[in-house]
Amino acid sequence: MDLGMIGMGRMGGPMAQRLLRDGHRVTALARSRDAFKQLEEKGVVPVESLEDLVNKLKPPRIVWLMIPAGAAVDDTVDMLSPLLTAGDVIVDGGNSNYKDTQRRSQSLAAKGIHFVDSGTSGGVWGLENGYSIMVGGEEGVVERLRPIFESLAPAPDKGWGHVGPSGAGHFTKMVHNGIEYGMMQAYGEGFAIMRHKKEFNLDLHQVAEIWRDGSVVQSWLLDLTAAALSENPDLVGIAPYVADSGEGRWTVAEAIDLNVAAPVITLALLQRLQSRDSESFSNKMLSALRNQFGGHEMKKQ
Amino acid sequence: MDLGMIGMGRMGGPMAQRLLRDGHRVTALARSRDAFKQLEEKGVVPVESLEDLVNKLKPPRIVWLMIPAGAAVDDTVDMLSPLLTAGDVIVDGGNSNYKDTQRRSQSLAAKGIHFVDSGTSGGVWGLENGYSIMVGGEEGVVERLRPIFESLAPAPDKGWGHVGPSGAGHFTKMVHNGIEYGMMQAYGEGFAIMRHKKEFNLDLHQVAEIWRDGSVVQSWLLDLTAAALSENPDLVGIAPYVADSGEGRWTVAEAIDLNVAAPVITLALLQRLQSRDSESFSNKMLSALRNQFGGHEMKKQ
Amino acid sequence: MDLGMIGMGRMGGPMAQRLLRDGHRVTALARSRDAFKQLEEKGVVPVESLEDLVNKLKPPRIVWLMIPAGAAVDDTVDMLSPLLTAGDVIVDGGNSNYKDTQRRSQSLAAKGIHFVDSGTSGGVWGLENGYSIMVGGEEGVVERLRPIFESLAPAPDKGWGHVGPSGAGHFTKMVHNGIEYGMMQAYGEGFAIMRHKKEFNLDLHQVAEIWRDGSVVQSWLLDLTAAALSENPDLVGIAPYVADSGEGRWTVAEAIDLNVAAPVITLALLQRLQSRDSESFSNKMLSALRNQFGGHEMKKQ
Amino acid sequence: MDLGMIGMGRMGGPMAQRLLRDGHRVTALARSRDAFKQLEEKGVVPVESLEDLVNKLKPPRIVWLMIPAGAAVDDTVDMLSPLLTAGDVIVDGGNSNYKDTQRRSQSLAAKGIHFVDSGTSGGVWGLENGYSIMVGGEEGVVERLRPIFESLAPAPDKGWGHVGPSGAGHFTKMVHNGIEYGMMQAYGEGFAIMRHKKEFNLDLHQVAEIWRDGSVVQSWLLDLTAAALSENPDLVGIAPYVADSGEGRWTVAEAIDLNVAAPVITLALLQRLQSRDSESFSNKMLSALRNQFGGHEMKKQ
Repeated sequence: MDLGMIGMGRMGGPMAQRLLRDGHRVTALARSRDAFKQLEEKGVVPVESLEDLVNKLKPPRIVWLMIPAGAAVDDTVDMLSPLLTAGDVIVDGGNSNYKDTQRRSQSLAAKGIHFVDSGTSGGVWGLENGYSIMVGGEEGVVERLRPIFESLAPAPDKGWGHVGPSGAGHFTKMVHNGIEYGMMQAYGEGFAIMRHKKEFNLDLHQVAEIWRDGSVVQSWLLDLTAAALSENPDLVGIAPYVADSGEGRWTVAEAIDLNVAAPVITLALLQRLQSRDSESFSNKMLSALRNQFGGHEMKKQ
Repeated sequence: MDLGMIGMGRMGGPMAQRLLRDGHRVTALARSRDAFKQLEEKGVVPVESLEDLVNKLKPPRIVWLMIPAGAAVDDTVDMLSPLLTAGDVIVDGGNSNYKDTQRRSQSLAAKGIHFVDSGTSGGVWGLENGYSIMVGGEEGVVERLRPIFESLAPAPDKGWGHVGPSGAGHFTKMVHNGIEYGMMQAYGEGFAIMRHKKEFNLDLHQVAEIWRDGSVVQSWLLDLTAAALSENPDLVGIAPYVADSGEGRWTVAEAIDLNVAAPVITLALLQRLQSRDSESFSNKMLSALRNQFGGHEMKKQ
Repeated sequence: MDLGMIGMGRMGGPMAQRLLRDGHRVTALARSRDAFKQLEEKGVVPVESLEDLVNKLKPPRIVWLMIPAGAAVDDTVDMLSPLLTAGDVIVDGGNSNYKDTQRRSQSLAAKGIHFVDSGTSGGVWGLENGYSIMVGGEEGVVERLRPIFESLAPAPDKGWGHVGPSGAGHFTKMVHNGIEYGMMQAYGEGFAIMRHKKEFNLDLHQVAEIWRDGSVVQSWLLDLTAAALSENPDLVGIAPYVADSGEGRWTVAEAIDLNVAAPVITLALLQRLQSRDSESFSNKMLSALRNQFGGHEMKKQ
Repeated sequence: MDLGMIGMGRMGGPMAQRLLRDGHRVTALARSRDAFKQLEEKGVVPVESLEDLVNKLKPPRIVWLMIPAGAAVDDTVDMLSPLLTAGDVIVDGGNSNYKDTQRRSQSLAAKGIHFVDSGTSGGVWGLENGYSIMVGGEEGVVERLRPIFESLAPAPDKGWGHVGPSGAGHFTKMVHNGIEYGMMQAYGEGFAIMRHKKEFNLDLHQVAEIWRDGSVVQSWLLDLTAAALSENPDLVGIAPYVADSGEGRWTVAEAIDLNVAAPVITLALLQRLQSRDSESFSNKMLSALRNQFGGHEMKKQ
């Protein structure tokens, strides 16, 4: 198929490549002269402006956004939509909040432009392994995009699906990431327990490798754990600092809104917040309180 | 190799079969006349007593225990050890607490009998897929058992390993189960959130299938989740009641002993306790307290 | 002082009484003929409409809202504000979300009407003990209301204060309630542990009474715990079902927005959600998963 | 009454003083010449050895231990018991594990020596306010000690009680401390949330003072919070490092043994563990994993 792409970064670049492999034609916005050249070399048709991008595509057009969630998506949609015509499709393949997606979809519908959300998992391994894709939007429009999803997925009939109306794709991807937080934290804790059991002097990389075959905890995240421990068995030089990109928070908020207790996903998020707060006021207060009632010494800093 | 087995249940039976496939000779204790016949039909050499079991094996003998953790192991070891001779090996393939393992190992060492702990993961799928095995014990003795581990594992050089001294195998298996608790709970919560999002009317089985290929949360537990949702999409007739077999508790206790905060594994355990307490006194007290200070109505039962 | 009140329920009624005791004049909206009479008997000046309420007060007027948070506040403010004149003050004494308060304050400011948020704690005991009041709003306006706060508080110089600009009062009250959730849950858990220790057959009411004097955990909530256990030592007939009124959720959301890990307040909230979900889909899925990998029996329902 | 005391530290010293005020006679073991003099000045009868201590008391003797839980109690009991005669009473006023208490009690019973556990709360404020005391042991023996408990408690009929057989006092004190952990953490979190809400620039000391009168969260711990914030509003120089003395862990372990989910008490403990682990291996692994699957940058250290 013929599609335009905006966002040729860590996710978008490899996705374009995977599409090219299957014979799709990808026109992409280049952010610089250098980028322009690089895209050209990879077989992408580079353009320098949104206008050019739109002009290079025949209606009904498909424009795929692979950009950071938030204001950037609104800005791009605002600039792009006046250039499009009724029947065109914008696909948001990023990690947008599903409520934003619903709002955007509704607003574009007024102009006859379709908005499809495509929750995309797979990270930097997607080029090689294919992406897992959860699609939200109108039935007919999603069907029109089928060849693209079939190329991006690990196999035409595997790893992707149309899960519901507008927003459902991003919602599902959000929950996916919430689960990911919980799983990562479970592995992290388990390996930390083993690490602290000096008595057995366990080789954590060996343990991860053993578990990769036949165990109940085998998973792709475990494969990556083994890879990380193989490269750096003591995780030397890595700060105990864990970023979060938003989807975990949204999952926690959504769970509470739905009256669903999700303690493990929630605690996995709080753990990340905590990893970045080396001056916990709460902990200081506990130290002060113990001193107040029990005369316990406070550690100074 | 030639080995005796005690415990031909849900785990032990299939393990024996897997060993037979590779040409090992398995002599097993039959609990009844019926069991005796069944074992015979499967190619196992059945015996009616521990004495017979020991007599059928040539020293240095290998006796593999695949029985429930706890008193049963002590009882069996107590009855078995007087029949054995120095140089014989007892393997505990069950989910024993590693501290019990260390105690038993030490006590048997006094008689020259070796005790090896073989933490075994893989559940009812082990016959087909092979088992993931974490082995603790003396180097030379574990080496002697190598052909057995190579047959039980998914491949001779995969899914098993000698991780440390006596107890290290069961310790590692314990942590494995703790991680398993956390992962299961993460999936459970995620699917519950999606289930409660009536707005999108998601097909949970479809979502699980999509995630199986290419996603960050792909895992064997997810494969089983998809299988469970395929059979029973609404989990009809299943009580929200989750048993626990001990290893989760031990992991939590161990983490605290080691001063490692493991909130996700811990909460996953507490969730199970809670699933079995439909008359929470704590919740009742909160309802009573809200009534005391705020005049809020208490729900009656 | 002279003030109007809207909302003569479980909180508003006793507050009016406390104000009357100190010689303030309270005009209140009566919801029915019966209510009208009852207010009259208590010394309140009853009125039948917002118009009457406003007419009975001399500018600059003070109108105190003591109504449920949410739409009711917006509706009342919308109906009330056209009747007021610049310089008048509306006080929201309820549990509104501080963001709504900021929005309302800003919108009323355009008309010269002041909006003061008065987070009020003390529950049904406030008439007797006085209320703890956290006030947000403009310095001069709050100062004007001083005689009211001094009457409502346990003592003129105790238990109340102007904590910051518009919204700060409700924000502080929100956090107060979050802490309350955590404290209640801590007591609930502790008493549940003692309850389950059959071996000691503890008299929980006795323990609560002992702790009320001299212990580190003494508190007003403990006094109420003792009262509840005195009336109903086994909490017979009370369902293990705990409602939540919103402020706990807002506290959890706010903590996450601020990147503050608040695991105890958060878990206290999740516990309440859980207390109301007797058909946990998550728990069912765990039971199904244990069956899938381990052949463990599922409890039926 | 006439009693001997061993342990004249932060808790024991003030307790002796409180007993002296009521006319009891206290004989205490002095650890040094200096201590000997100081005790004498306070009106305590100092002795230099356990033998002297025992000799100064008339049978049936009462010896009160106020020493750190653990080996010190066993050592002291072992040295003391041969010097005592049947009918004498040892009281353990410290924070011993109730299982140790039961073991000691049983072992001393064989010699006719009574062992009473006296869980003591009140910290360094007990001298002034009286102590809250939970007593375990035989009915008659506890009754014999009544005058002592009546003097130590805030009032003769308040703040103390005989809660059950041997061990019940320490068990109850253990749960008390578990609740204390949860409450402290709830306050800590709440104040941290307010601290991070820069927008309102709240005066945390003022808020604590407001809550002390009339609010639902008023408590003695809140009084101490206010005191701590009054002395050091920004908690400057206090490390975010919180010690734990054992009773929290025991409460968590006990809850799990009893199948009681106590998430708030448990998380409060984990929070303390975490406060002391600035090199969290778990967090490092999460950072490494995010890099593996998403190419996210790892913060270096």
